[in-house]
Amino acid sequence: VPDISVSDEGELALIRRINRRLRATSGTPDLPLGPGDDAAVVAAPDGRVVATTDVMVEGRHFRRVWSSGYDVGRKSAASNLADVVAMGARPTAILVGLAAPGELGLDWVDGLADGLRDECALVGAVVAGGDIVASDTLTIAVTALGDLEGRPPVTRSGARPGDRVVLTGWPGRAAAGLALLRAGHTEHPLADAHRRPQPEYAAALVLAGHDHATAMIDTSDGLLADLTHVATASRVRIVLTASRLPVDPALAVAAELLGVDPFDWVAGGGDDHCFAATVPSDVDPDLPWIGGVVEVEPGGQPGVVFSDRERPALAGHEHFRS
Amino acid sequence: VPDISVSDEGELALIRRINRRLRATSGTPDLPLGPGDDAAVVAAPDGRVVATTDVMVEGRHFRRVWSSGYDVGRKSAASNLADVVAMGARPTAILVGLAAPGELGLDWVDGLADGLRDECALVGAVVAGGDIVASDTLTIAVTALGDLEGRPPVTRSGARPGDRVVLTGWPGRAAAGLALLRAGHTEHPLADAHRRPQPEYAAALVLAGHDHATAMIDTSDGLLADLTHVATASRVRIVLTASRLPVDPALAVAAELLGVDPFDWVAGGGDDHCFAATVPSDVDPDLPWIGGVVEVEPGGQPGVVFSDRERPALAGHEHFRS
Repeated sequence: VPDISVSDEGELALIRRINRRLRATSGTPDLPLGPGDDAAVVAAPDGRVVATTDVMVEGRHFRRVWSSGYDVGRKSAASNLADVVAMGARPTAILVGLAAPGELGLDWVDGLADGLRDECALVGAVVAGGDIVASDTLTIAVTALGDLEGRPPVTRSGARPGDRVVLTGWPGRAAAGLALLRAGHTEHPLADAHRRPQPEYAAALVLAGHDHATAMIDTSDGLLADLTHVATASRVRIVLTASRLPVDPALAVAAELLGVDPFDWVAGGGDDHCFAATVPSDVDPDLPWIGGVVEVEPGGQPGVVFSDRERPALAGHEHFRS
Repeated sequence: VPDISVSDEGELALIRRINRRLRATSGTPDLPLGPGDDAAVVAAPDGRVVATTDVMVEGRHFRRVWSSGYDVGRKSAASNLADVVAMGARPTAILVGLAAPGELGLDWVDGLADGLRDECALVGAVVAGGDIVASDTLTIAVTALGDLEGRPPVTRSGARPGDRVVLTGWPGRAAAGLALLRAGHTEHPLADAHRRPQPEYAAALVLAGHDHATAMIDTSDGLLADLTHVATASRVRIVLTASRLPVDPALAVAAELLGVDPFDWVAGGGDDHCFAATVPSDVDPDLPWIGGVVEVEPGGQPGVVFSDRERPALAGHEHFRS
């Protein structure tokens, strides 16, 4: 079968083709009106809608030699769904803007659509609409919507002295995967952590609901950088216990392979979309806590420190600086 | 004052700078939580939210030599707000993904933010959030949200035989403006119709509400192409009266200047974001009607024809074909 490109297909046929793969059906409770009109109609039973957007650019956030269209679909949906879940909201729908070179293979676009659909299905969301335009630079812009189900949003600013800091997932795996890819280990199992991060959506929604998280964030910039956002917004100090940070055994092996300190990945690596939350100290003590929240001392500054080691000199992930 | 670029500023400082210009304040009725957290919280009092997304790419949808940052901000907001209004919904918020080369001037970004803010202000909406990433290709992805205020959405599929076709605004002006720019007439007044289309939001919301429009669309692909979408979705024929199409006198002069048929712009030109609606025939006869809706004859096809001239051979605006 010859590889057919998006420019062979034409915009309207391409949209029909993608919509078939997405299987988003109008008239469901979450999607009264799906793709195909000027706009979609998405249910917002709470009377408020949580909304966030993220852009992924080829060469900056992914490379086609390392990631398939399916991988990029999963990842671009995940990074947005994680932001919705980090607010304590149930994701309902995403909208997708695709800017693509005319020579992009239709099979890549098919994979992208499948990946978007499958990641959304993990949380019961759907692809409600989108736009396709031509561009020299392959770019995917995803907007995700979610419903708070009557709860207050879990912001970055609610952490209180006395709270415990809880973490879902395994931080640093995506950064390790990217380092492995850059070093040519494209078949290493950890490389998939870069290609398709696996946010623990359900655990985060339990933290927001049952466990009454006071603040929550997903680790898109890295654990230290993101907890610094929480500390700054909440005007508190966060004291982490380095020995309690979960370290994927495969990550430790990969760090030895590449001759780097695994702690730099664990504390500084972004794109894992782990969820870091602060919870009241009387909540279930078996939660995987990694530290606590204390007051800022007189004359001190909000921030993040470790109780059992020096804070590494890590820059936050800033796109125009990297 | 030296021109400073986005890469001089850094991501976090750039976001703070933009947010100051946007003046989106958390805690308002429409925006319980604004920019600065993982996601925004936007009011959706209807219990449903209308959502649409559009991507604009430099060199395809605008050129920096022809359009300022302010122009692109106005236009990228307008194209999305018009899609929300075409559903009969009141726009509440937009989210903006900006992919920008590091050398992009900060003044351009300032203008973009101001343009987004000012276009939103026309309909009482705000910029609720966004994302900024680095890219070789300047790209703006906007998602707009809106509230139906208890009304059913006005889709493309509701036109009924006997309805009248009503049009707001002056179709073809944006296409004329683009043709003038391409021919070097960069100071021509009509060039601004390409730079900053002016959708008649309020008139469209009256059509949706008071006038009970059965179908509505904004003319982003061109009047004929978009009414063909309505005819196809509604399984009807639309019969237009060419002599009733509004022709901007300046457009007729520009057509003579460039030696083209003004009708090609009026019937085929996109990006004006005029609103074309079908309304029941017993609604106010003084509405600016341009045609009517009839049944598809046995063996016939849905589509658009003229009662008083031939249908021009115009292709719909397809990005990968153009």
